[in-house]
Amino acid sequence: MEPRPPLNDVDDLTAAFVNCSLKYDRHSSHTAKLMDRAAAVMRDAGASVDMIHALDHTIEFGMSPDMTKEGRPADDWPSLHARILDADILVIGTPIWLGAKSSVATLVIERLYASSGETNEKGQYLYYGRTGGCVVTGNEDGVKACSRDVLYALQHIGYTIPPQADCGWLGEIGPGPSYGDDVEGSDVPAGYDSEFTNKNTTYMAWNLLHTARMLKDAGGLPAHGNTAATWQQVPNAAPTG
Amino acid sequence: MEPRPPLNDVDDLTAAFVNCSLKYDRHSSHTAKLMDRAAAVMRDAGASVDMIHALDHTIEFGMSPDMTKEGRPADDWPSLHARILDADILVIGTPIWLGAKSSVATLVIERLYASSGETNEKGQYLYYGRTGGCVVTGNEDGVKACSRDVLYALQHIGYTIPPQADCGWLGEIGPGPSYGDDVEGSDVPAGYDSEFTNKNTTYMAWNLLHTARMLKDAGGLPAHGNTAATWQQVPNAAPTG
Amino acid sequence: MEPRPPLNDVDDLTAAFVNCSLKYDRHSSHTAKLMDRAAAVMRDAGASVDMIHALDHTIEFGMSPDMTKEGRPADDWPSLHARILDADILVIGTPIWLGAKSSVATLVIERLYASSGETNEKGQYLYYGRTGGCVVTGNEDGVKACSRDVLYALQHIGYTIPPQADCGWLGEIGPGPSYGDDVEGSDVPAGYDSEFTNKNTTYMAWNLLHTARMLKDAGGLPAHGNTAATWQQVPNAAPTG
Amino acid sequence: MEPRPPLNDVDDLTAAFVNCSLKYDRHSSHTAKLMDRAAAVMRDAGASVDMIHALDHTIEFGMSPDMTKEGRPADDWPSLHARILDADILVIGTPIWLGAKSSVATLVIERLYASSGETNEKGQYLYYGRTGGCVVTGNEDGVKACSRDVLYALQHIGYTIPPQADCGWLGEIGPGPSYGDDVEGSDVPAGYDSEFTNKNTTYMAWNLLHTARMLKDAGGLPAHGNTAATWQQVPNAAPTG
Repeated sequence: MEPRPPLNDVDDLTAAFVNCSLKYDRHSSHTAKLMDRAAAVMRDAGASVDMIHALDHTIEFGMSPDMTKEGRPADDWPSLHARILDADILVIGTPIWLGAKSSVATLVIERLYASSGETNEKGQYLYYGRTGGCVVTGNEDGVKACSRDVLYALQHIGYTIPPQADCGWLGEIGPGPSYGDDVEGSDVPAGYDSEFTNKNTTYMAWNLLHTARMLKDAGGLPAHGNTAATWQQVPNAAPTG
Repeated sequence: MEPRPPLNDVDDLTAAFVNCSLKYDRHSSHTAKLMDRAAAVMRDAGASVDMIHALDHTIEFGMSPDMTKEGRPADDWPSLHARILDADILVIGTPIWLGAKSSVATLVIERLYASSGETNEKGQYLYYGRTGGCVVTGNEDGVKACSRDVLYALQHIGYTIPPQADCGWLGEIGPGPSYGDDVEGSDVPAGYDSEFTNKNTTYMAWNLLHTARMLKDAGGLPAHGNTAATWQQVPNAAPTG
Repeated sequence: MEPRPPLNDVDDLTAAFVNCSLKYDRHSSHTAKLMDRAAAVMRDAGASVDMIHALDHTIEFGMSPDMTKEGRPADDWPSLHARILDADILVIGTPIWLGAKSSVATLVIERLYASSGETNEKGQYLYYGRTGGCVVTGNEDGVKACSRDVLYALQHIGYTIPPQADCGWLGEIGPGPSYGDDVEGSDVPAGYDSEFTNKNTTYMAWNLLHTARMLKDAGGLPAHGNTAATWQQVPNAAPTG
Repeated sequence: MEPRPPLNDVDDLTAAFVNCSLKYDRHSSHTAKLMDRAAAVMRDAGASVDMIHALDHTIEFGMSPDMTKEGRPADDWPSLHARILDADILVIGTPIWLGAKSSVATLVIERLYASSGETNEKGQYLYYGRTGGCVVTGNEDGVKACSRDVLYALQHIGYTIPPQADCGWLGEIGPGPSYGDDVEGSDVPAGYDSEFTNKNTTYMAWNLLHTARMLKDAGGLPAHGNTAATWQQVPNAAPTG
């Protein structure tokens, strides 16, 4: 690639990648393999990546920021939440099951949402000023359906979504190999040579970096019209056009 | 509201609002009424709004930029498309029918998508550098479901999605008044006094303006890692974390 | 296959297949090719199939059963609607664009929905006693997402949905051939040799026939608890369990 | 209501209701309150209901029927699964969070799906011959979006979906009371007097009973065209009109 112009200096940017695989062992997660590649694009560019495998942790069900305060015996969410808030970028990875994002992804989104009423120092919702994306893998169908759900949730709670903020891989329709599985008669694991997936992975990674760069340089979104103190009733407009 | 800081100077920003109501008569569209209010927030701030009522025009079905070249007798899409490309911001408005966005909204998205393979002068997909949002009204259920579909489509083709980029109104569950309908025993049309809807409408309008401001000042997203000429194979990363 | 048991006698059953392709020319529709195969399973079994190519007709936008009564110059929907109501089974076919069902499919569903408040001779909603399914084709992703939307709509207005009531085909992720396209170096058009697609197509066709058979033999669903005259307030149950 | 005709004798029918609330305490679940009312309609008619509160149990993440065999310390799913398979009807209840079904509902669907490749004594997928529905509550938006996901999953794994197989309640748009909450100045808890919700709850309950009755009397769906042994390649149909 050409040398990066100054705006692309991303050494101070940080990303949290949360893998919402149903596999307790990160090394057997196919989604992890594609997330690693997206993370590698970012690291290669100079950014830092904090990789979280959700099922390495005890994440409780429930809509409170800390479920131990609701009587549950353990909840690692508060520390994971702090790591996510430390990062300029959040990438959620999910496998596809029956065309939908995983229960773990749904759980992580619920826990993020449980804190979305809190505000930052400007009075905006907590996650404002951050940038979100999505990595999806499955063996036949559903990348767009899962991304749609994840990206909608992220923008709803305050993340900015760059263009083409998702990437994914699917095998042919019907049962078949998952991303990174060995393929008989080939040296290349399933999907690793998909130009489509590789291109979208790079696009996503860089669009997240570019957008995070802009937001960080601007100190986040301006706090005007989007805080309890700075919005007012909308004009009672007469029909036009 | 407090005086706007310099970054909020939006006099040069333009927005295209496309109402995808099923009503041929714009004045009977409930969605138009909420779109007008969002547009009024933008105009009040100094931005220009181009209001398009889709069914005032002949928009052909089909995946070509100009369906008259495919033998159809008429197609107003090329001129509408030019108006949409002229704008920094695109807001799609849709009513909800059976929990889904309207056929007209689906048609407009298909026509936008049909040109998404074209590139801008930097080699990025055509819609890069623009900002997208969504207005939804219905009488009981489905704002989030419709926004999810619309916002996903817009980010997929190149629009940046700010936080809280949608707004909407719903009546109580079951049949009932639509947005702006007369309410017996009240001077206030249905929904006009919903603080929730009014607040989200202002938030959406301003977040679109703030994000469009940033993108315009930066000359769009940098063209690095997101064009045919500047991406390369992603690193074949070993699993980490 | 083994000889059919008596219950499977389906000679009197009828199905309407509505192809919601964006192609005006039915012969260039890929979805038509898979619909033809599903229809052939039904015809082979003895059922009759009425094949409708939506874009051969003028179907107006709007939520009235006959839009010519709302001032529109033409509307073929009333006659199409009659053909759909004549059939025991409705199969909607749709291509996938940007992960979603087509605008034409959305339009057909809106028009069906516009009559859903009418009732049959038992006082049930109009479409009760009929059976619905879905055929989807695309070049990479979205069969389940489209089926989800179509089947939900059909059950909502009164259709019974059998198990595995959808079938579809997708190519590999990224651009590529559509269903039935010529494949270089192969005698078999794309997808025709997909056992997965062929199996699901047969399953769908037969599950629609079996379910329609049961409903027709029973004279539809009993009219008890599901009509304005036979439902009452639900019991105000105390929490249990 | 009028006396039930013979076909409506449902004394031998059984339903499993699985509440996928995020509340560990069933008595604080709003969704439980509406599920109880649907269950009461069924019990009133003579059917038996087995009420399961998912979070009373340890349900492991993972795609194996019994996760203790994959090294997890505990998994109550096998016994819950047996109770679900014992029932003619399955009703999944879910709250709405951010417009989507709960993580617990997603988890229950994943676990059901993990066994969907198994077959019954006829060679059909395991869940064939059963009937499925859905109860949804939230405070503003998303009944249809959640039902769409749940009902699609159930039909995909073998359940038959009757017409109007879902019911739900939503408050007005924006924050507000949940189903069954006390309402200031009223004796009636929120939603209990919604004719729309009550009507749909009864419709759902009876349509599930009617459909389960038919399927049980027929010994399930005939095993023809929908088993590994009885399907064959679909005809290679020529395009038709």
